Amino acid sequence: MRTIKIGLLGFGNVGSGAYALLNANLEDIQRKVGALVEVKRVVVRDTSKARPVAYDPALLTTDVEAVLGDPEIDVVCELIGGVDPAHEYVLRALRAGKQVVSANKELIAKEGESILREAQSHSCDFLFEGAVAGGIPIILPMKSSLAGNRVDQVKGIVNGTTNYILSKMTLEGAEYSDVLAEAQRLGYAEADPTSDVEGFDAQYKIAILSSIAFTSRVSVEDVYVEGITRVSQSDIRYARDLGYVIKLLAVGTRSGTDCVQVRVHPALIPQRHPLASVNDAFNAIFLRGDAVGDVMFYGRGAGMMPTGSAVVGDLIDTCRNLVHGCTGRIACTCYESRKVLPIDDLVTKYYLRISVSDCPGTLAAIAGVLGANGVSIESVRADAHDKAEAVWVTHAVREANMRAAIEQMEVLPEVYSVENWIRVEE
Amino acid sequence: MRTIKIGLLGFGNVGSGAYALLNANLEDIQRKVGALVEVKRVVVRDTSKARPVAYDPALLTTDVEAVLGDPEIDVVCELIGGVDPAHEYVLRALRAGKQVVSANKELIAKEGESILREAQSHSCDFLFEGAVAGGIPIILPMKSSLAGNRVDQVKGIVNGTTNYILSKMTLEGAEYSDVLAEAQRLGYAEADPTSDVEGFDAQYKIAILSSIAFTSRVSVEDVYVEGITRVSQSDIRYARDLGYVIKLLAVGTRSGTDCVQVRVHPALIPQRHPLASVNDAFNAIFLRGDAVGDVMFYGRGAGMMPTGSAVVGDLIDTCRNLVHGCTGRIACTCYESRKVLPIDDLVTKYYLRISVSDCPGTLAAIAGVLGANGVSIESVRADAHDKAEAVWVTHAVREANMRAAIEQMEVLPEVYSVENWIRVEE
Repeated sequence: MRTIKIGLLGFGNVGSGAYALLNANLEDIQRKVGALVEVKRVVVRDTSKARPVAYDPALLTTDVEAVLGDPEIDVVCELIGGVDPAHEYVLRALRAGKQVVSANKELIAKEGESILREAQSHSCDFLFEGAVAGGIPIILPMKSSLAGNRVDQVKGIVNGTTNYILSKMTLEGAEYSDVLAEAQRLGYAEADPTSDVEGFDAQYKIAILSSIAFTSRVSVEDVYVEGITRVSQSDIRYARDLGYVIKLLAVGTRSGTDCVQVRVHPALIPQRHPLASVNDAFNAIFLRGDAVGDVMFYGRGAGMMPTGSAVVGDLIDTCRNLVHGCTGRIACTCYESRKVLPIDDLVTKYYLRISVSDCPGTLAAIAGVLGANGVSIESVRADAHDKAEAVWVTHAVREANMRAAIEQMEVLPEVYSVENWIRVEE
Repeated sequence: MRTIKIGLLGFGNVGSGAYALLNANLEDIQRKVGALVEVKRVVVRDTSKARPVAYDPALLTTDVEAVLGDPEIDVVCELIGGVDPAHEYVLRALRAGKQVVSANKELIAKEGESILREAQSHSCDFLFEGAVAGGIPIILPMKSSLAGNRVDQVKGIVNGTTNYILSKMTLEGAEYSDVLAEAQRLGYAEADPTSDVEGFDAQYKIAILSSIAFTSRVSVEDVYVEGITRVSQSDIRYARDLGYVIKLLAVGTRSGTDCVQVRVHPALIPQRHPLASVNDAFNAIFLRGDAVGDVMFYGRGAGMMPTGSAVVGDLIDTCRNLVHGCTGRIACTCYESRKVLPIDDLVTKYYLRISVSDCPGTLAAIAGVLGANGVSIESVRADAHDKAEAVWVTHAVREANMRAAIEQMEVLPEVYSVENWIRVEE
């Protein structure tokens, strides 16, 4: 039986998890693969740092050449994160004919094209199940089990931190800033939470999912992005009264035969939608195919062991390919070039919360602006609080019209301010 | 570019669906596979029968040799159902070095071992994603993406007919027999509904899922099975009051290092469990792995196009293997032989609905029998209806004890009858 040798680049959270899992279930993994599997070297920045798992200290090195330059190493696991120097390391590994597994969403979202081209030209595997939604199998099912479908939409809750915050706001009635502070204390949110709360993490992930779903490269800049920092407890409560919950959604939609639209933003979704009950740090991805209809994949979207599970799944896949001499078996599927539509072309319903003066004619003035911009109204409710608020839900309309209406509304004398407006995803 | 030729055995619902999907998305499928793909012959019993899809009549033949005996045919799709003659056809195809795709749950549950052995000895693929839960990707994710995990439990709602019936009973308050009659009128249930309502369909599916999850063959007879025919509207209502819903669950559980337990029966599950909101004809499979934690896969568990999607996914997989010369790439994973525990060894909570006399001492008599058998009580409620009913929920206890207690209860003078008892799955 041959021995497949693995080199790890990075031994942080995910690297430690993958390493621990590989060793814990080694005998089963070797039987499934049909070969012996061994981690030969682990490249780290600091060999003296404490790690959360048991390991042989002789494996550790600070010299990346000990992996990239060792012809005995068949598979490189890139788990250092970020574009630089991960991009260069991955390209070098592929050029040396090594298989590569990565869980680096930023690298794949930004440099997936050049990496997959390099992999293809060397008939090598470049696998990245761990880059999106942690342990949830979604990349392989899309590339294989569901590959007979024309995918019309892929959408999901792909960021655990923001889902934790919005779940707490919904279930416990707390305000955004209080929940964020608590999440930071508990380690669920970073000291600098920007990447999560501004939606950038979800932006990378939906760029990757959409590229696969629509067989066409979607670059990070193509994704419209809006975070959750403006969602208030008022919005959560009004949404509930209207039969919705608010989630940070990442959505990719096919539009006509040659366009797609890809976006990340908070959205009102119906309480009965399967995504509505995905709470806390869980993730879920919902996909609509022309044959399969609606399918959903649910699980832990982050963490040492769930992401480790995805990395080890990819290792098993590439080891099987090595045993059967068929690395590079699943080619890059981005063979189309679809146009990405701007957010102005989105057609959806909107929720609007407006702080208004309490005098006669206020609702008429707002309704007049909406009507003049072609926005028709599904419902309106005016509540008397400290200052009067009116909450409107529109029928589906083009976003350009909605934005024009909001701009005009903000200068109406009857309107103090448009407090928030959120897209409604039916 | 080479042409891969496919022969279909059977052109019913699933066969037509797979054929229609393959043709609808042929260009994309060929790009993903890296080869031309063509259905060369379709074997049917009756060439004159009307089919729900457009097709070239010249493809149809009643002669199975036109597929099995044609050396040009690379892949055989077995979609005729049942064991006989499907088993023989599949073995013959594999012996001729052809790849086989099947959606035949009964065949795989009963004869999977002999078929996978034959496939392995010819380095052929035998793929069967469509056999369990229609279009939901579950077999490939278990064999690949999640293969690094030790799976501790796999459970699910895998029969659409019974889930439709129980959902209607829950959401609309109807009685079992009325909903069944309606389901039969609408075509959601067969004229003879035995296989669905007695749990036999789910029995095949959980035998397959457990065999993969626990890397050990679970035969159909190993699966304890109980259908939904005794679930009444009373049970549904009491369950709701207690915070549960009733679902037909198929459950496989690892027990210690070398045993498993596999069962199909109605169960009370907490209203907040992700499986609780899986309604109508939808299916879902919930899996717990040592690294990934809880994951769930949700979608349409049956139907021409969803099951067609799974069959075409398998076709894409085996076509890629043909192109790369690596058929038989994923070997049979049943390499262990775990003991299957009898249902008496199950340890769980129970819900009991007992029709009792209204005289003093009744509850004490029942509690006495429970206590004498080591069954402790979590809650009890006695309701006054036409005849008095008492509903008990026990703490977790061995099923053998529960059965002994019920037998003794049934002869108590204070007990008219034990109307129903249902396992509670937390």
